[in-house]
Amino acid sequence: MKIIAELSIIPLGVGLSLSRYIVECEHILRDKGLNIQLHAEGTNIEGEFNEVLDAIKSCIEAIHKLGAPRLVTNVKISSRIDKIESMQEKIESVEKKL
Amino acid sequence: MKIIAELSIIPLGVGLSLSRYIVECEHILRDKGLNIQLHAEGTNIEGEFNEVLDAIKSCIEAIHKLGAPRLVTNVKISSRIDKIESMQEKIESVEKKL
Amino acid sequence: MKIIAELSIIPLGVGLSLSRYIVECEHILRDKGLNIQLHAEGTNIEGEFNEVLDAIKSCIEAIHKLGAPRLVTNVKISSRIDKIESMQEKIESVEKKL
Amino acid sequence: MKIIAELSIIPLGVGLSLSRYIVECEHILRDKGLNIQLHAEGTNIEGEFNEVLDAIKSCIEAIHKLGAPRLVTNVKISSRIDKIESMQEKIESVEKKL
Repeated sequence: MKIIAELSIIPLGVGLSLSRYIVECEHILRDKGLNIQLHAEGTNIEGEFNEVLDAIKSCIEAIHKLGAPRLVTNVKISSRIDKIESMQEKIESVEKKL
Repeated sequence: MKIIAELSIIPLGVGLSLSRYIVECEHILRDKGLNIQLHAEGTNIEGEFNEVLDAIKSCIEAIHKLGAPRLVTNVKISSRIDKIESMQEKIESVEKKL
Repeated sequence: MKIIAELSIIPLGVGLSLSRYIVECEHILRDKGLNIQLHAEGTNIEGEFNEVLDAIKSCIEAIHKLGAPRLVTNVKISSRIDKIESMQEKIESVEKKL
Repeated sequence: MKIIAELSIIPLGVGLSLSRYIVECEHILRDKGLNIQLHAEGTNIEGEFNEVLDAIKSCIEAIHKLGAPRLVTNVKISSRIDKIESMQEKIESVEKKL
C-alpha cells in the first residue's frame, strides 16, 4: 500500500538550533529514494508503507546517534484503499477550487 | 507574539472528498491577510498568535456550518521568544545544509 | 460549542526535564475550572471552545515566561455539532465493546 | 530501544461512529502483549520500537479490511536513550509536583 506521511522530529536536550538534525533525516529519506517535500513544519513523504516506516525509524535512530538524548516524533499517515492520490494531486485538488 | 502554526482539519461524516471543506478554510485564512503555505498534509500559517487562533476557530465553525457534523483538527504551534523566524527562513536553514 | 482538546507542549532549550513546565500549565487549566485528564503523552481538556483556547494560550505564554525560549505545542480539537459527548463517554463507548 | 507511542486513527467515509474501528485496534494491541492506556483522544502504547511500529501497521491494515476506505493516523513517538521512563513514571513526575 502506498501512503503519504508527514514527519516532524523534535530533538530535546540539544539547544535551540535543530536544522543539523533535520538535515540528517533529509539525507536518509533521499538516500532511500523516497519522494519528499520539506515544509516549514515538517517533511511530507510519499512511498510504500513499509519503506516509509523503515525510513522514519532510521531517522529516529540516526538523530539519537548524532547526540540527541530525547526525541518527540510526530508522524501523520494518510492511507486509502479506494484510490491512489499523490502529494501533488492532494494539493491540486484544493488549489483548483481556490 | 508571532507564531507559525500548522493546521489540518479532518471532517467526519461527509464522505471521502474533503477538498471543499479545506477550500472554505483557505478562503478564511486569506481573507484575514495571513501568510499561508498549503502543502499535502495541512496548511502552514504565519501571524500574530491571537489572529492565527481566531482564524483557526473561524475555520472550524465555518466547516461545521458547511455541513460537517464532526471534526478532528490538529494544530501545531511553533513559538519562540529568542528570535523571529519566518516559515521561509525555517525551510532555508535546512535547505542550505543539504 | 463544547469541545474536547488534547494539549502537549514541548519546551526546547531547557534541558531534558520538562515536568516543571507541564505542572505550570496544569495549574492554569485547573484554576480556570476546566475538566482535565493528564496522561502519559498530554492532557485532555473538556470545555467551551473559547475557554479552552484561552487556557492553551495562557499555558504557552506562562511557559515562555518561566524561561523556555522555544516551544512546540500540539493541540488536537475534537468538535461535533450532532451531539455532546464527554471525555468519559468517549472512553466508555470503546471499553464496553472490548 | 523502548518507546512510548500515542496512536489515534481516524477512519473516513464510514460515518460518525468510530468505536468499532478503535476496538479492532485495541484487540490487536492487547493480543501483541503491549502495555496500553486508552484515553479520550487516543491510546498510549509502551514497548519495543519495532513491536510498537508493527502493531500500529497491523491496526491500520485491519481497519482498512473492516471497510474504512481512508484513514488519517496520528502517531507520536517519545524516545530517549539517556534513561528508561514508563508511562506511569511520566504521569507521576508531573502529579507529584501538583
